Amino acid sequence: MTHASRRARLAAALPEHDTAAVLVNWPVNVRYLTGLTSSNAAVLVTATGQAALATDSRYLETAEAVCEGVEVIEGRDVAGALLGRVPDTARVAVEADHMSVGQFGRLAAAHPGLTPVEGLVEAVRAVKDEGEIAALRRACAITDEAFSLVVERIAPGVTERRVARWLEAAMVELGADKPAFDSIVASGPNGSIPHHSPSDRPIERGDLVTMDFGARYDGYHADMTRTVAVGPPAPWQRDLYDLVRRAQRAGRHAVRPGATADEVDAAARGVIAEAGQAERFGHGLGHGVGLEIHELPFLGPGRTGRLEDRVPITVEPGVYLPGRGGVRIEDTLITRGDGPELLTLTTKELLVL
Amino acid sequence: MTHASRRARLAAALPEHDTAAVLVNWPVNVRYLTGLTSSNAAVLVTATGQAALATDSRYLETAEAVCEGVEVIEGRDVAGALLGRVPDTARVAVEADHMSVGQFGRLAAAHPGLTPVEGLVEAVRAVKDEGEIAALRRACAITDEAFSLVVERIAPGVTERRVARWLEAAMVELGADKPAFDSIVASGPNGSIPHHSPSDRPIERGDLVTMDFGARYDGYHADMTRTVAVGPPAPWQRDLYDLVRRAQRAGRHAVRPGATADEVDAAARGVIAEAGQAERFGHGLGHGVGLEIHELPFLGPGRTGRLEDRVPITVEPGVYLPGRGGVRIEDTLITRGDGPELLTLTTKELLVL
Repeated sequence: MTHASRRARLAAALPEHDTAAVLVNWPVNVRYLTGLTSSNAAVLVTATGQAALATDSRYLETAEAVCEGVEVIEGRDVAGALLGRVPDTARVAVEADHMSVGQFGRLAAAHPGLTPVEGLVEAVRAVKDEGEIAALRRACAITDEAFSLVVERIAPGVTERRVARWLEAAMVELGADKPAFDSIVASGPNGSIPHHSPSDRPIERGDLVTMDFGARYDGYHADMTRTVAVGPPAPWQRDLYDLVRRAQRAGRHAVRPGATADEVDAAARGVIAEAGQAERFGHGLGHGVGLEIHELPFLGPGRTGRLEDRVPITVEPGVYLPGRGGVRIEDTLITRGDGPELLTLTTKELLVL
Repeated sequence: MTHASRRARLAAALPEHDTAAVLVNWPVNVRYLTGLTSSNAAVLVTATGQAALATDSRYLETAEAVCEGVEVIEGRDVAGALLGRVPDTARVAVEADHMSVGQFGRLAAAHPGLTPVEGLVEAVRAVKDEGEIAALRRACAITDEAFSLVVERIAPGVTERRVARWLEAAMVELGADKPAFDSIVASGPNGSIPHHSPSDRPIERGDLVTMDFGARYDGYHADMTRTVAVGPPAPWQRDLYDLVRRAQRAGRHAVRPGATADEVDAAARGVIAEAGQAERFGHGLGHGVGLEIHELPFLGPGRTGRLEDRVPITVEPGVYLPGRGGVRIEDTLITRGDGPELLTLTTKELLVL
């Protein structure tokens, strides 16, 4: 029923793009629309709400079991198998973001008129149903709990890589499918690299340590960042932390249905700019999460569109001082009419270990 | 030096495609050519061997540190930033397999003449240098060791999901970056689903249990499958196992530089066909592994091309009986002139637990 209603929402969006059907080949979108997890499947959804899925023998038995209300056909060339059944492909959309230019060339030669359209399924996916939000809530709870278990083991001499492995093992032990993405653990001067890969650098007394990680639960991705101090922080470290914390709070408070993507970003960015550090915050404020770790909507300067109700979004400002270190603080929250629902509940007080 | 020699091999391949440069945007290929791991970077390599890389602020400091012999420029639209510096893009190739049709449309509008070409970097990547093989060897050793630690814990009542988590935790504990892919654990009747997702089904006495998993080490992916029996196997289970084992041995023995992709497949498939089970082996025999879990070359009916020296490849026949169960046995090995080097060393005797 859930998947059928998602397909109905997608079908309803097709006429405005002047298309009669859409061929969906991105595995995440195929799962979203049918329930099938697979590395080789495609689904064709028509504006009248009919759906057919093609997959190869490896996934056929599972597809027949899980894809309710969807005709299942077997084929290795899944896109070709589905398009071959359509008498006129002149009004069939394909996923512009996900179909490669090479595959499009091959398909378009055999099926004239195929039209690349961007973000058709992603727009439907941005607003979550409560079942999806429950999975995200659980993913974030696992993330919080893993942090609480690991943070007390962090001490001088422990390497970044070890902390990352502890976080990941704790999340899996607590029931995560797996880590939502490659964990970031950045200590001391490495903290100035927003997407630092955990290294064999031992953490030292006097370091700030930034941990950006999350659990995936039932396919849904949590995302949280905390920065902690190992030993008493220097005044510049405390000031930097307070600045980012204030910016993060301003960003969270700007999250509401109807807010534009750039005004939420500006709420946080303004705090950092006012402190003269605008140049040291080089990335966007946040992004949607769900079946992917980065999905619509994106918050950043010049980003367009308005937040809707029930959209999970991260708020993650950071300030990075090359050669010295950095601070980033990030939560995952859900837009709600009566104020955002915070899913990552770990304290944002500066923890001094 | 390693990355420079890879770029030189790529540059040498450009003239035969009548191109003067190639824009590489696939993160795995960017890493292969420059050493930079990033979610947003591109590199332009010219036929004369020059290289420029674009990335955004999150990765800039790392890029400047690791990309030897490569000019590094900053930008969010990394492809646009690189193409904007090329006076004439009429002979610039892009990655047909990896650039989306949507992005290609946008870039081609601003940069006329861009040409999608398939598999340029992949062809260079297929043949590994000894440093890459050493990483794969370590990934496979971790995989073997994890299997040996976990197999003795498998018993009636343990769920598929628990076995998968044990395997994954053991691999990470033994030094893996992370699991190379989502582990498959398929017990009893679930064994007929080649890519079954581990479920909460408790393993029962009398089950065959297929485990398909591997470690990623320093970015390189191991891939191994073993099927074990829980309690004394029934005659049909032992027969099925022996059949797949003989087919797998035949496939391994056919692996050598110069062999064609379909003749290696046929060596294994013929054994299964002779036993009247051709219909129950619906997938290809194997695939290359390296920085991706599935990469060139692919072994299967109708697959073209010849194996070269120093190519890691999996050999993984399976026979799947719907409603009853299945057997798959898989190794990762390296083509060598004096016979394949087996990297996954776990026994292929039928283990009875």
